[in-house]
Amino acid sequence: AVRLRVREALGAREPADAVRVQGWVRSVRSQKEVLFLHINDGSSLESLQVVADPSLEKRDLTFGSAVEVQGKLVKSPHRMQNMELQAETIRVVGPCDIWSFPLKMKERHPLEYVRQFPHLRCRNNTLGALLRIRSEATAGIHSFFQDNGYVHIHTPIITSNDCESAGELFQIEASSEAKESAEKTHFFNVPAFLTVSGQLHLEVMAGAFTHVFTFGPTFRAENSQSRRHLAEFYMVEAELSFTESLQDIMQVMEDLFKTVTSTVLSKCPHDVELFHKYIAPAQKSDITHKLFSSSCRISYSEAVEILKQAPQTFTFKPEWGCDLQTEHEKYLVKHCGDVPVFVVNYPYDLKPFYMRDNEDGPQHTVAAVDLLVPGVGELCGGSLREERLPFLESRLQRLGLTDACQWYLDLRKFGSVPHGGFGMGFERYLQYILGVDNIKDVIPFPRFSHSCLL
Amino acid sequence: AVRLRVREALGAREPADAVRVQGWVRSVRSQKEVLFLHINDGSSLESLQVVADPSLEKRDLTFGSAVEVQGKLVKSPHRMQNMELQAETIRVVGPCDIWSFPLKMKERHPLEYVRQFPHLRCRNNTLGALLRIRSEATAGIHSFFQDNGYVHIHTPIITSNDCESAGELFQIEASSEAKESAEKTHFFNVPAFLTVSGQLHLEVMAGAFTHVFTFGPTFRAENSQSRRHLAEFYMVEAELSFTESLQDIMQVMEDLFKTVTSTVLSKCPHDVELFHKYIAPAQKSDITHKLFSSSCRISYSEAVEILKQAPQTFTFKPEWGCDLQTEHEKYLVKHCGDVPVFVVNYPYDLKPFYMRDNEDGPQHTVAAVDLLVPGVGELCGGSLREERLPFLESRLQRLGLTDACQWYLDLRKFGSVPHGGFGMGFERYLQYILGVDNIKDVIPFPRFSHSCLL
Repeated sequence: AVRLRVREALGAREPADAVRVQGWVRSVRSQKEVLFLHINDGSSLESLQVVADPSLEKRDLTFGSAVEVQGKLVKSPHRMQNMELQAETIRVVGPCDIWSFPLKMKERHPLEYVRQFPHLRCRNNTLGALLRIRSEATAGIHSFFQDNGYVHIHTPIITSNDCESAGELFQIEASSEAKESAEKTHFFNVPAFLTVSGQLHLEVMAGAFTHVFTFGPTFRAENSQSRRHLAEFYMVEAELSFTESLQDIMQVMEDLFKTVTSTVLSKCPHDVELFHKYIAPAQKSDITHKLFSSSCRISYSEAVEILKQAPQTFTFKPEWGCDLQTEHEKYLVKHCGDVPVFVVNYPYDLKPFYMRDNEDGPQHTVAAVDLLVPGVGELCGGSLREERLPFLESRLQRLGLTDACQWYLDLRKFGSVPHGGFGMGFERYLQYILGVDNIKDVIPFPRFSHSCLL
Repeated sequence: AVRLRVREALGAREPADAVRVQGWVRSVRSQKEVLFLHINDGSSLESLQVVADPSLEKRDLTFGSAVEVQGKLVKSPHRMQNMELQAETIRVVGPCDIWSFPLKMKERHPLEYVRQFPHLRCRNNTLGALLRIRSEATAGIHSFFQDNGYVHIHTPIITSNDCESAGELFQIEASSEAKESAEKTHFFNVPAFLTVSGQLHLEVMAGAFTHVFTFGPTFRAENSQSRRHLAEFYMVEAELSFTESLQDIMQVMEDLFKTVTSTVLSKCPHDVELFHKYIAPAQKSDITHKLFSSSCRISYSEAVEILKQAPQTFTFKPEWGCDLQTEHEKYLVKHCGDVPVFVVNYPYDLKPFYMRDNEDGPQHTVAAVDLLVPGVGELCGGSLREERLPFLESRLQRLGLTDACQWYLDLRKFGSVPHGGFGMGFERYLQYILGVDNIKDVIPFPRFSHSCLL
């Protein structure tokens, strides 16, 4: 018998005689004359309907059990389904203790409920769809950059780099036996941390390959259980040499978003539909709408003016020179008509040392850009980088970072070029296109303060 | 002027009038009548030759400087090169202080030398070629699995899972301010570590998607500075449900190897050639040879017999039940004719709890497989997993791991299926196909004991 995956069986053009399908039972319905099963193997959201003689029913043929069915693949009389399998044999490969199995047949379990079972929730329709979409988006991101001539770089996870004094770091050290002998000396001789961004390492590579990207895990030891934060999350980061305008950076952000989203939409339309039907029906989170909606571009200074003139009062009073708070971001997005909003040119004193000085005044800014999107807030952040040695030197000196960043200064001594880049939070991207409220539901194994299951 | 990357300019079919090329100067040669430059932008190993009037020469137009050249793209009179650029203007975008720049014009720097400059070595031909190959291999791995219906899973980097008592772990904890308040309570409430393998988490997913893979960083706090070990390295791991034979696993290993290697060969032939010409000329490391060489399959017991009958003496005497040492692996590969060797069915007591019991005797084995390759040793390791609840329960009980592995036992209670998988060390793969002796030269930022630069 030819082994077919459920997706292949469902999409078959012609009936076939000896077919074998393996998967897990999603429903069992026993009637007098006929036994109906639905078999799912994760290759698609849809399950394959199996029609069998009631004599093939067995005690352990239950919801959740693993089965192998052999039989004939025939045209289905049902409108909703192309093919069905007429079973000749059904073998229960692995039974399922349905009394202790936390998932129940035909129930739409809430996301909060299945979150308690990180080792089983992928067998739930919603998480199944999510992980297929996540996989296609991952492939789409790699293809987008590859097709546009970017070199992929594995930026390091463990770093000793203390140029960026991002407050909330995870520190690492060899455990167990290693620890005792290493108490005076660190494993790496120096304190080592989990990366918060691959940007500085990508800048190294942009000095050789012009266009580079990375897509990997990043970490924050933030003591937050918010629906928007994780301790371990994924970032897509790109860096482009010979780039002199923020416009170029914004263009890549937009192209990336549109290309990957089109890919997801064409590769898993049913999975996406599930989210827009059941998870975020109220949010107008129609993916095609997001895909074709135009974006709005304003400066930070304009943003502050808009906020000052807002009829509503904010918890944090908007003021030039202060960070935009979540409430501000929300208002700006709404003000612009619920479309993505690029905010450019932030106050010099708010932003990290590597951002390029706009040399303007009296309101001194750097060439930074954030992309704010409805429902999620900041999706991408980027900037032109300061490529001019004297500017960078004097800024690092004032911060007392000259020694730590010697290697970074070197990049400006040896063939420095105007360049810039950005990062996009991958989980936030998924939240945005699918309308998923909680970031814990768009990653296979969420890690956050007080929780690291499995 | 149309902006072209060097690769595009070199590959152009037709001459073109107004062309702009940006990159770094790899050589300057000034003659009476003419000035020759070679410009590289990392899009290819080959540089673009620029021909200019000597009047365009400037003091800061040196090796390593960043330039923008405008002019005419014309057919080159040289055999070795298709196109060259006749410069009309040359602008030095970023000068290079050649006296302190550690790379020198036209010098073939040894790998050990450039390793001292992790922020600059990517501008060296060899590392440039390596990183382009690494990028193509990365894309090839994603495509291979995607094309074969595997779902990509981001298995977690931080894990609390202590099923696997792999000795040399990195432990993580929130640093700085966070640390003080967390001294009694861990950030995650439990001790947390950097992953040594995504296998157990992949098994979770194989229970929903049948075919899954991951490709990410893994960690060992090994106090070793060997040419084969890193503290942070990349692994490709795959898991397949409904698989009852090691043969299936070996087939995927071989298909993966051949597909990715063909991709690399067709996408960057010149980069590969550099390695086989200059880095490993003696090693017969012809990639096409590796691609088509047949592999050898022996059992562990056969391997021990072969070793016992070897005319040479080993430091570690070969004995049934003992681990194969590097010296043994080397001998076996040579004995089989310098081809990849699959060794299957290892002693039960040597291997981790999750490997499937072969129920044989008196020499009790599990269904494990290692792939040994010339020059590198172990490239892949895999096994069938123990899917039978009673077998797994009794083994975990004896190890005192029942409580820690409750979730893993759950996978066998709810629709368990025969399954298996493997992991391939990505850096070792690159070492093998390119003939690179030291693993530190096939990763952008190597981390190992006593060293974490940048």
